[in-house]
Amino acid sequence: MNTIDEYYMGEALKEAREAYDNDEIPVGAVIVGNGRIIARGHNSTELLHDVTAHAEMIAITSAAQAIGGKYLTDCILYVTLEPCVMCAGALAWAQIGRIVYGASDPKRGFSSVSEKILHPKTEVVSGVRALEAEALLKQFFEKKRK
Amino acid sequence: MNTIDEYYMGEALKEAREAYDNDEIPVGAVIVGNGRIIARGHNSTELLHDVTAHAEMIAITSAAQAIGGKYLTDCILYVTLEPCVMCAGALAWAQIGRIVYGASDPKRGFSSVSEKILHPKTEVVSGVRALEAEALLKQFFEKKRK
Repeated sequence: MNTIDEYYMGEALKEAREAYDNDEIPVGAVIVGNGRIIARGHNSTELLHDVTAHAEMIAITSAAQAIGGKYLTDCILYVTLEPCVMCAGALAWAQIGRIVYGASDPKRGFSSVSEKILHPKTEVVSGVRALEAEALLKQFFEKKRK
Repeated sequence: MNTIDEYYMGEALKEAREAYDNDEIPVGAVIVGNGRIIARGHNSTELLHDVTAHAEMIAITSAAQAIGGKYLTDCILYVTLEPCVMCAGALAWAQIGRIVYGASDPKRGFSSVSEKILHPKTEVVSGVRALEAEALLKQFFEKKRK
């Protein structure tokens, strides 16, 4: 964890709050390439009626358009929650260079199935600003229960 | 395997041939709901510069739009090649009722990682018209090597 990671995770948290405001499970992501944010995404599965519209998937597609190629080997994904199997599979195909995530997801996170889902060269950092991501998720599910 | 499955797999094979004609790895899919095809897709990762543009992902998104909801519990996916981890993860989120695939994919197929990626209620049938799917893939990779 370092100051730069915390900064970009703050941008992912902004995306998560947008999802929250849209009544979506609050997960947000940004992708950084060459020292700048090239893609942003927040969970939009309800809005789009689409299970594939996770924050990471939206950001991956968008980053590839920004780059003009489908491989994200020199990019970093910041995402507020541990990626699920689907998103980890997509990140493997994209051969993303580095993944920084906030909260762990013991039920749906890829690491509960297999760490090997990701590309072997992808570096993973977890727990960055995790408390903020968790607090937002907790607040969302408490609101839903009312 | 039954005649209906073979028929719909023929439609998925048509999609795979379209991918082939577009110089994409030839994989095709259709989704059937209420006895009719509600979505079609073929691999478009090169065309769209997008690792997420697998035949199944395109079909899942399209089927959800056709239905107006993100769950595909009463639908059947026909796909010419065993789904990868990303696509299997998406099919799990969609809680698809049944998956019928053609050729197995020992390197990239979800079953080599874990059968548990799919939703526990999803029925899986494999090997339907597998030889045709394999022949098309083989033809593609031989063409690429030239």
